Amino acid sequence: MIIRIEGESDIPIYTQITNQIIEGIARGEIARGDSLPSVRAFAADLGVNMHTVNKSYHELEKKGIIKIVPKSGAIISPTEQMSEEKMQQIFTELKPVIAEALVSGMNKKDIRDMVSSILEELKER
Amino acid sequence: MIIRIEGESDIPIYTQITNQIIEGIARGEIARGDSLPSVRAFAADLGVNMHTVNKSYHELEKKGIIKIVPKSGAIISPTEQMSEEKMQQIFTELKPVIAEALVSGMNKKDIRDMVSSILEELKER
Repeated sequence: MIIRIEGESDIPIYTQITNQIIEGIARGEIARGDSLPSVRAFAADLGVNMHTVNKSYHELEKKGIIKIVPKSGAIISPTEQMSEEKMQQIFTELKPVIAEALVSGMNKKDIRDMVSSILEELKER
Repeated sequence: MIIRIEGESDIPIYTQITNQIIEGIARGEIARGDSLPSVRAFAADLGVNMHTVNKSYHELEKKGIIKIVPKSGAIISPTEQMSEEKMQQIFTELKPVIAEALVSGMNKKDIRDMVSSILEELKER
């Protein structure tokens, strides 16, 4: 899996890393139980600060996507039963983006089509 | 329109304000051309720091949703033609949330249903 960092982006680098790891799992390029590289190796590989990778790993852990095991590294968690709380969190993240899309002038069909095109390249668990 | 600040949330307060203003416009509760309250009045009303409201207004301006006019305040912009760049920005915001939903165990139908339920309470421009 290739992570691309865009220095010019408004999106913080640690969020770019987080997002691309999540998308890599969703595309099936990284499997449950796989380990992510060590913070040190990943930072060197990407040419970013170790602090940045660390922040991304902690964000992934908070989202329940990886488990950081001391000495063993960061392991992609098995999928658990979807909780009501997690569902609510996804709703809270999704709603402002969809509202922004409408306010920016997309119509509802455009939005549904965009969602479909994103879903097409991703896998269900 | 009522803005609700959740102090316990992981979402920064300025982002909560930004998101709720965007959702208010998308629900039709705030119209194009309307002014937002002054930073001072809004901050006092919400019981937050003026800096927080200011940060939110600048985020809204960067997204092209309001125009900050010195002395006149923050005015909701008319919708412009959807640009390719804006479309790409929405795509970039939408994709990680949908990937996270799948990785968290939602299936594609759940996601489409969630998008539909969000769209139901919002208006096209």
